[in-house]
Parts: sequence; C-alpha cells; structure tokens
Amino acid sequence: MATPFCMKRIVEFGDTDMAGIVHFAKFFTYLEAAEHAFLRSLGISVVMDWEGVPLGLPRVSASCDYLRPARFADELEIRVLVRRLGRSSITYTFEVFKDDDALARGQITAVFCHHIPGHVMESIDIPDAIRAKLVPYLESAACG
Amino acid sequence: MATPFCMKRIVEFGDTDMAGIVHFAKFFTYLEAAEHAFLRSLGISVVMDWEGVPLGLPRVSASCDYLRPARFADELEIRVLVRRLGRSSITYTFEVFKDDDALARGQITAVFCHHIPGHVMESIDIPDAIRAKLVPYLESAACG
Amino acid sequence: MATPFCMKRIVEFGDTDMAGIVHFAKFFTYLEAAEHAFLRSLGISVVMDWEGVPLGLPRVSASCDYLRPARFADELEIRVLVRRLGRSSITYTFEVFKDDDALARGQITAVFCHHIPGHVMESIDIPDAIRAKLVPYLESAACG
Amino acid sequence: MATPFCMKRIVEFGDTDMAGIVHFAKFFTYLEAAEHAFLRSLGISVVMDWEGVPLGLPRVSASCDYLRPARFADELEIRVLVRRLGRSSITYTFEVFKDDDALARGQITAVFCHHIPGHVMESIDIPDAIRAKLVPYLESAACG
Repeated sequence: MATPFCMKRIVEFGDTDMAGIVHFAKFFTYLEAAEHAFLRSLGISVVMDWEGVPLGLPRVSASCDYLRPARFADELEIRVLVRRLGRSSITYTFEVFKDDDALARGQITAVFCHHIPGHVMESIDIPDAIRAKLVPYLESAACG
Repeated sequence: MATPFCMKRIVEFGDTDMAGIVHFAKFFTYLEAAEHAFLRSLGISVVMDWEGVPLGLPRVSASCDYLRPARFADELEIRVLVRRLGRSSITYTFEVFKDDDALARGQITAVFCHHIPGHVMESIDIPDAIRAKLVPYLESAACG
Repeated sequence: MATPFCMKRIVEFGDTDMAGIVHFAKFFTYLEAAEHAFLRSLGISVVMDWEGVPLGLPRVSASCDYLRPARFADELEIRVLVRRLGRSSITYTFEVFKDDDALARGQITAVFCHHIPGHVMESIDIPDAIRAKLVPYLESAACG
Repeated sequence: MATPFCMKRIVEFGDTDMAGIVHFAKFFTYLEAAEHAFLRSLGISVVMDWEGVPLGLPRVSASCDYLRPARFADELEIRVLVRRLGRSSITYTFEVFKDDDALARGQITAVFCHHIPGHVMESIDIPDAIRAKLVPYLESAACG
C-alpha cells in the first residue's frame, strides 16, 4: 500500500451551515485543495503549460461519503492516494480524518486536457513525466 | 416513470472558476437548492419541527457526474426524482439540463434525524405524512 | 429619485452558517447576482465583447452594512440603483429587504476594462450606449 | 504602531472566477479566516461560552478595497490589527499581501453578543479578560 499524501486544514466558520456542521458541498473544496497541494508537492500545477499548450484537469465525476460531521475549528487531515491512472484520466481517493476518526471518504476523477481558451477541451495522454510522479501514489501496484 | 420536479437556475459569475466554467463543487449547491425547492413544493422544510422535535436531514453521500460544462448566465433546469425511500433515508437523483443537453447527473442520500442542538443526531422513521408526499416522485414504483 | 431594479432571491441552506443566519460574505454574492440581473435586464453582460474586444468589470471596492439577519428560506428582495457613473467606473448601491424590513445595505464600485487574457486589465471610458442605459438608474440626477 | 497578527494562505482553485482571479467576495472569507486565526492565537474562539452563556460575534459591517488581483496558488499574507474597541464592538483592519504588494485592504466591525439559540442576539460589554488581550493590537494607543 502506498503512503498517502497528507494535508492539514482547519475548518473555517464560513464552511459551516445552520446545522452547526461543515456543509456537505464544502467537503469537495477540501478534497480539491488536497488534490492541488498533492500535485504541487510533485511539482505539478493544474494551471500549467505542457510543451507550450495550456493544460486543464476538468472533473468527470466526484463523490463523497459522510461518516461523521466536521465542526468549526476542527483540525482535519486529508489523505490523498491515486486509485487509477488511465490513458488520460486520474482517479483520486481521499480520506478526511479528525484525529483517529474518519469523517469522510471521497473520490474525484479528472481528465488531462488541452485547454485553449475558446476551444473545446480535448483529452490528451497523461505526459510520461507526470505519470511517473503519480505512480508511487497508486493505492495498489496492480491498479497501474 | 414519475414526472420530475423541475427548478430553473441561472449560473452566477461567482459560480465559475478560472477555467471559465462552473466549479464542480458548485453543482452540489445546485442539487441541494433543487432538493429544497422540491421539498418546499411539497410543504416540507428541511428546517422543521415534527411533533415538537426539530428535524434535520444530514447527508450520507453525494455524487455527481459531469457531462458538459455549464457557463456564466446559462439557464439551467434541474430535475429531481426520488430513487429510493428507506426506513429513514431518502436517495434523490438529479439531472442538470441546459436546453436539451444534460450537463450533469447527481445523487444525494440523506437521513431524517432528530436534531436537538447539543445532541447527537438520531435517525427516525420517515413520518408517514412526509413519505406519502414523496412516493409519487419515486423513479419506479418497484423502488418503493 | 429613480426606481430601483429589483431581484427576488430565496436564501439557500448552504448560505447559512452555524450561527443560523446567512454568512456575511454571502451577501456580496447576493449583491453581485442582483447587479448582473440588473445589467442583463438592460441587455448588458459583464462577459461581453465591445467592438471586438472582451470587456471585464473588476471590482475596486465593496462594502455592506448588516442591519438584521437573513435566515434559511427567507424570500429576499434586492434593490439596485446607481450612485455614481465616472469616466470608467460605476458605483452601485444595494438594499436587501425581507418584506418591509431592510436587512442589509451595500455598495460596489467596478471599473469597465478591456480584458484580454494574458494582459493587464486596462480601464476604458464607459461606452456611450451602455452609459445611456445606466443613467435612468442614477439615485439622483445631480449624481451624473 | 502595533505589530499585526499575520496569517498565510494559499489561493485555491475554487476561489477564482472566470476572470482568472480571486472572486471579490472570497476576500471576505480570507479576512474572516485571518480574524479567527488571530482570535485563536489569543485563546479566544468566536464559538465560546462566557460565564455559561454562549457568545457570538455577528458582523455589523464589512468592506474591502481591491488594489491588485490575487491568482490561483498565490501565497498570501493577511495582516490583522484592531482599529477600534468600543463598549461591545470591535473593528478590525486587514491587509492582504503577496510578497511586497498589497492586494487588498479590508475592515470588519463585529459586536460581542449573547447568542442563545431561539433568542434575539443581545450585545454585551466586551469581557475585560478578552479586551486585555486585544488592546496590544490596537493600531494606535489613542484609538482605545
């Protein structure tokens, strides 16, 4: 099993709703923040040029299971792994912890695309140099 | 097949991100807005007392598949149906359309709970009067 | 006194925070939504080309005074007027009402700019055809 | 001049809008996050009991001037000072920097209140123990 990338995050007041807990949609911004911190840690930005053409990473699907509520000022740890690397797609898995309690588990699938303003996004093969950086985070070697 | 509840919504500038399209996490707030408009149309509020005890409807899971991007000022139609009514849980399905194009499909499962401030939420049987209002929106009679 | 442009809006669950009221920062998205609905009613989009060059309307300042809380499912009316039209800037005033109660008063100043991707935004004179549409909403004729 | 409290923050993708810059309303969540980190550094929470009664800190007004745009992945520093301590109100000033560039300047006024669920909020004198912690952050001694 690979070692996940971990990001800390403190729940902000504006993340909560009138039920007194973090609003469910906010978790997706937590997952994305962790994804981007993960990519940044690998020297990859979701806003980048690759061989002179701007890349984008639009989302194909996103899901989250909510196990326990998160509350204002909670210190969360978000763990990121890669479930699957396709030709052009990447599927991440996320776990949100508070201390030893799992609060949520999520998944996002995104696709590497050329993203030229004014043009339709077109999927591309994940560049080899990027793929090589992601492989160590595959949940299981067999997933590659 | 039941007839879905439909809600219109215009994409706001603050819903977009630097990719020029609606941010993926925003779709969940669209789905929730449609859920609440749907419940409101049935005379049900997610913030209500039931026989003197405050009810809540915390989310157990949420997911969305993104088919086509939504853009600023797009007029969206969000269609709501009920996939499943459990003892205490409800699973909605959502479709987000722009004209005849499906942009996204989502699903949210929530649980009817007593929600007394300072207490852990406890699931309850969906009250019969509420269940009766929801049944006509079940995707298929067999799902009940 | 000019007649304000009015927009209705229902408070959504995700707009609230754990204090049980609409989060203060959300009011700015309400004001912006009203601004854009106002401009749209005049046939003006904040995402448009003008004589072949994309325009933008970046904000220079924004403020809001909070008089009474807004709550989930409240039906709000947001009223828009123009306080001042400068050479390239526009200052809007907003009032947020629930029934006869003013809940908030806000102000936003924005600047008409050329907005060519990859270039610094440059302010331009407000095009005459746009100015002519805005003048009837000036709070006072003397403000012009 | 007092030394401001400083908080770092990285701009997230979801903070941007289709103009490619941080959406103006998002700055208010940055300011609030800095306010709460500031209070937390003093051992004060905006969600706390004081002598057995829950306190709240609703906002009376908020404003922001935008000097330069912030962009995805920018590392911001938000500086917090106290402009004024009234009987029950506090006015903060904020500066948002990227390296040596001031991007925005903001101000928030909030009021210490008893916040008992189901009751109208009632302003209270700022407790002496809290006031004593805030005084060193007054912009000028004369402001007290």
